[in-house]
Amino acid sequence: MIETIQWTAEGVVMIDQTRIPAEETYVTCRDYRQVADAIRTMVIRGAPAIGVAAAMGVAIGVAGADTAAPLDAQVDAICAELAGTRPTAVNLFWAIDRMKKLYGQLRGKPYEEIRDALIREAILVREEDIAINKAIGQHGSSLIPDGATVLTHCNAGALATAGYGTALGVIRAAVESGKKVGVYADETRPFLQGARLTVWELQHDGIPATLITDNMAGHFLHAGKIACIVVGADRIAANGDVANKIGTYSVAVLAKENNVPFYVAAPISTLDLTLADGGGIPIEERGAGEVTHVFGVQVAPTGTDVRNPAFDVTPNRYVTAIITEKGVARAPYEQTLRDLAK
Amino acid sequence: MIETIQWTAEGVVMIDQTRIPAEETYVTCRDYRQVADAIRTMVIRGAPAIGVAAAMGVAIGVAGADTAAPLDAQVDAICAELAGTRPTAVNLFWAIDRMKKLYGQLRGKPYEEIRDALIREAILVREEDIAINKAIGQHGSSLIPDGATVLTHCNAGALATAGYGTALGVIRAAVESGKKVGVYADETRPFLQGARLTVWELQHDGIPATLITDNMAGHFLHAGKIACIVVGADRIAANGDVANKIGTYSVAVLAKENNVPFYVAAPISTLDLTLADGGGIPIEERGAGEVTHVFGVQVAPTGTDVRNPAFDVTPNRYVTAIITEKGVARAPYEQTLRDLAK
Repeated sequence: MIETIQWTAEGVVMIDQTRIPAEETYVTCRDYRQVADAIRTMVIRGAPAIGVAAAMGVAIGVAGADTAAPLDAQVDAICAELAGTRPTAVNLFWAIDRMKKLYGQLRGKPYEEIRDALIREAILVREEDIAINKAIGQHGSSLIPDGATVLTHCNAGALATAGYGTALGVIRAAVESGKKVGVYADETRPFLQGARLTVWELQHDGIPATLITDNMAGHFLHAGKIACIVVGADRIAANGDVANKIGTYSVAVLAKENNVPFYVAAPISTLDLTLADGGGIPIEERGAGEVTHVFGVQVAPTGTDVRNPAFDVTPNRYVTAIITEKGVARAPYEQTLRDLAK
Repeated sequence: MIETIQWTAEGVVMIDQTRIPAEETYVTCRDYRQVADAIRTMVIRGAPAIGVAAAMGVAIGVAGADTAAPLDAQVDAICAELAGTRPTAVNLFWAIDRMKKLYGQLRGKPYEEIRDALIREAILVREEDIAINKAIGQHGSSLIPDGATVLTHCNAGALATAGYGTALGVIRAAVESGKKVGVYADETRPFLQGARLTVWELQHDGIPATLITDNMAGHFLHAGKIACIVVGADRIAANGDVANKIGTYSVAVLAKENNVPFYVAAPISTLDLTLADGGGIPIEERGAGEVTHVFGVQVAPTGTDVRNPAFDVTPNRYVTAIITEKGVARAPYEQTLRDLAK
């Protein structure tokens, strides 16, 4: 059993996703700044997991607050620090808002009561996330044909969530229903979430996984080797445009060109109905070192100019369906997503 | 000035492309088996450069022949060894056939005469290749708009040829004609020819280069950042289907989807008019280690299953034009390529 993130008496314990597969080590964050650092440096990543981390970050921040000073300003500072870690995954802001709202309801109560309620809420966010992923799996399972080879990009698995996974949750549910399913995993440069995390997770579960470089996906789609694609999402606009790990757009275009269904699996908390379309989704640009170096080894000449957008936006016309814990949405997404989100 | 491959008194000297950019070292191949090894292990790579290496391999093989034994069988063995190194780039077979044909004309002449003629021919193949690339550049230059950002995949530069390059030759010629041109270079996993070789070459020439991971190309095409694409080729079928480095097909599909021209630059020796279409092109599958390890660093779990096709085939419908030393071919390629090859 992979434990991505847990609330413990010692602090927030996360498996260090920067070290897998070389090492299976755990990091204990003892204050909210350490949680923020863990999100920023991708010790924990994946939109739903970032949401859980943010909720626990708020809780541990309040648990470590100066009880002699006003709490409101401290909660604001904690939330601001956590909100500034990564811009694209909306689950981060969703979780912070949820914790803020609860704090707003508790204001004025004794500190210990507020603290304990926020801790309980953060633990609940984690537990709900696992249940949500299992529901996504149930809804998505029927979309995966028996005997299928499914392509996935990045890691939308147990490690990207509190457990079970979104895209990999759909695959797990299909396997649990008795289907034979194999996975092609894009390695997902530059951070190699596919090579490092998805393959590792699937090996743990005994689900056959084949690793390919990102630029091979088109070749295998064209060769008819892929029955369908399932990926996660970092933010979904009201019209169904999907922000997800860089390279998702390319996979979606190549899927459409080859008449292969392209599915997105994500919790309702990934919807951002305040944005009419994907044009408004902020795309994080990360440092050049992720591209020029692999595990510290330099692979490009010194002084190389780099672009490193961490996400891209897939227009809704490439998305066959969006699988949520409340059901499967299909075009027109303006309507179907709003209905599911009710 | 980058010297990819040269005939010297010491043997065939190649810049070691497995070590760039960390080191700029040269390998001296003193017999044909060392040349074959250099091709197999990608010390030298790129279809035209492989052709030059094969020609020099035949020459150095004959130069090292046992003059007391029959030459025919030795030439057959030398050619068979070289032909067995890599299956996809047709230039390898083209160069071996050229050397074999010359040998056939010289059979029965004194050994020294045969040897010297084959050495002269191999040197000529190299010199012709540079001239051919400059002609490709001249023909292709007008296709590159002033101020353009050009995307390229893999390395079809000086290092992939005897000098100047095919795709990068077109870009060099555009720059030499006074145009401002910038390049986006796909890193080109697994072997990272884009990150290691293309960026290095362009830095040498002072042409602005931006490195991206392969899965970012679609994002930047969709964002309107790319004016056109120029790539090389390893084999072009009679109908214009193009085998080139894995990932080329994906880039071509993404270009078409975003109305960006997709150009292929290659010498006539890359045409294989014996193949009606790209379905008959053999695609080399290389070892798993290229994907699971980067410069010796393990990036995927031990025991990971891998697919590693080194090339893919881009159907002719995605190819805007094929730029050769004899002119620019456009659809219908069955007609235009046959005309150029005359």
